[in-house]
Amino acid sequence: MTGLKDSMRKNTQIRLDRVTREWVIYSRARAMRPHDLKQKSGPPRDLPRLEANCPFCPGNEHQLGEILYESPGPNKHSWLTRVTPNKFPALVPEGSTDRYDEGLSVSMDGYGRHEVIIENPRHDLDLASMDLRELRAVVDTYHLRYLANAEVDHSMMTILFRNHGSRAGTSLIHPHSQLVSTPVVPAMIRLREAEAQRYWDQMGRCVYCDILAEERKQGVRLLKETKHLAAFVPYAARVPMEMRVMPKRHAADFGDASQDELHDLTIVLHDLLGRLSALMDDPDYNLVINTAARHHRGEPHLHWYLNIRPRLTTMAGFEIGSGMNINPSLPEDDAQFLNQGKSAKAD
Amino acid sequence: MTGLKDSMRKNTQIRLDRVTREWVIYSRARAMRPHDLKQKSGPPRDLPRLEANCPFCPGNEHQLGEILYESPGPNKHSWLTRVTPNKFPALVPEGSTDRYDEGLSVSMDGYGRHEVIIENPRHDLDLASMDLRELRAVVDTYHLRYLANAEVDHSMMTILFRNHGSRAGTSLIHPHSQLVSTPVVPAMIRLREAEAQRYWDQMGRCVYCDILAEERKQGVRLLKETKHLAAFVPYAARVPMEMRVMPKRHAADFGDASQDELHDLTIVLHDLLGRLSALMDDPDYNLVINTAARHHRGEPHLHWYLNIRPRLTTMAGFEIGSGMNINPSLPEDDAQFLNQGKSAKAD
Repeated sequence: MTGLKDSMRKNTQIRLDRVTREWVIYSRARAMRPHDLKQKSGPPRDLPRLEANCPFCPGNEHQLGEILYESPGPNKHSWLTRVTPNKFPALVPEGSTDRYDEGLSVSMDGYGRHEVIIENPRHDLDLASMDLRELRAVVDTYHLRYLANAEVDHSMMTILFRNHGSRAGTSLIHPHSQLVSTPVVPAMIRLREAEAQRYWDQMGRCVYCDILAEERKQGVRLLKETKHLAAFVPYAARVPMEMRVMPKRHAADFGDASQDELHDLTIVLHDLLGRLSALMDDPDYNLVINTAARHHRGEPHLHWYLNIRPRLTTMAGFEIGSGMNINPSLPEDDAQFLNQGKSAKAD
Repeated sequence: MTGLKDSMRKNTQIRLDRVTREWVIYSRARAMRPHDLKQKSGPPRDLPRLEANCPFCPGNEHQLGEILYESPGPNKHSWLTRVTPNKFPALVPEGSTDRYDEGLSVSMDGYGRHEVIIENPRHDLDLASMDLRELRAVVDTYHLRYLANAEVDHSMMTILFRNHGSRAGTSLIHPHSQLVSTPVVPAMIRLREAEAQRYWDQMGRCVYCDILAEERKQGVRLLKETKHLAAFVPYAARVPMEMRVMPKRHAADFGDASQDELHDLTIVLHDLLGRLSALMDDPDYNLVINTAARHHRGEPHLHWYLNIRPRLTTMAGFEIGSGMNINPSLPEDDAQFLNQGKSAKAD
């Protein structure tokens, strides 16, 4: 049997993610369904600067637990970001890492950390609408809290993430991110490590460095490039408008990001989230920082990056049953759409 | 450091899924968030028996493609289930299985099958509200279409699934399921195969058979048992009210299910989906049949099963970034809730 013509391959093809080994199905026909790409909410509009009942707003500090960190604001006693334990923690900072092994039932204590990063005193701001100074405070807080948690107690993996809008799983509107340190290395992370290690053992190069070089060379999925970082739509993006920001300098661990890289990360985030909000009418999204598990800090085969996954489609039975995603939009088309009026090489 | 007391372990613990090797976090604190467990929609109520604009309703056959299969209804010219190609196909039945290998970019044609199984002529019925004869027709149609597709062309994996409600990803209300045959074996399936094989190589037993025996022995998560099947909440359920139905007789492939097993599957589905709908007010859910990839039909270490995953919580950044789920509800509590007034041993 012969392969599809190029014109048809634009409409339906399957791509391999070289790091997760997962296939992603691209089907333009699915974009025509009445359901997809129309579901978005974002936070409500016309929010007040201050909300009397919001536990993250200034004046409601008594509703928070301990303030673990505060970055200084422009005036005396003012603040830009705040960090506090999550009041509904997934994990608690006590327990043991022993496994309770009863035949096929293996469990352990829910031992770990779960912090909330309040991104700004203002209730009505968001990453996309902050100025660069405010956004830099968020990025710096990510970095500081990552460093504070990555090797605390028996933390094995530290995940920094942000849920924007109810479809992305947020329960509070006030702009905030979260950090969770787990006492185990998730199986998904182990799988990625193993694939990247296999590539390194064979090629003697970091697969992420190679992907980044390829994206910069091809340019068709490139969204932005600065001195220290590049942003692109991944070749095997799992969802429409997925965006990835990667440092050019090889580093496995987000904790090893330099001040220059954090500066550029601020610039790139400001640009990308601004484009997403403007072009797609403020869709819900998840933002995640992918980094090395503990003890893998110096690995030559791992590479930290930041990933933004808009929630424009719904994970359904096929995705749950197969682990494969169906993406109604081709990554090159997404990049072109997100680049309208912009040069990826600007700044 | 000492482990948590039993009373605290009820509130937060982490469990290992022995087949996926993934950890699942259980946190009762998360159940108290304003957001979780309240999001559900289900299809609208008071639907008409027949909807003039619905392509799956009788009289609108011209909107369908070819009718690939029809199961006979009680009267001449009537039908109970119908199968037709999906009009918005993820994969198309032409192309090649060659890989287009350009450095790090590996892709292939979107070559496969995508069928819709219309479950009933009536627009307003659902699996939970069908009578046993109607539901048996759906189960039989699953089985027949699985057999028709599992080894067609270069199909490597056949996924049968159902999306109930908009949060579960459905775009059409008329009761229907779907079947997708892919030309690749998804990485997630390969991972499960490898884990089950490792267990078999070590123990000489099927890990699923062992899990089933353990669930029947412990009984605390058991939902129902018939002569040929048992249903339970998995020990490491990823979401609240997750339910699994497994045949007692070892069989890797859903295609090898016997008539007796399909009979019991009908009884069990009728009961479980009825309970879910009544007790949780018809929540959105995904139903998936997990089965062997092609060429693995006779494997001693694989075991088909049916899984129901209610969509009561939202996958957020933590789940995306770690692959771990946070479940606000303990499986034993879910089983107790789902068993209220029922004996798992009944029927």
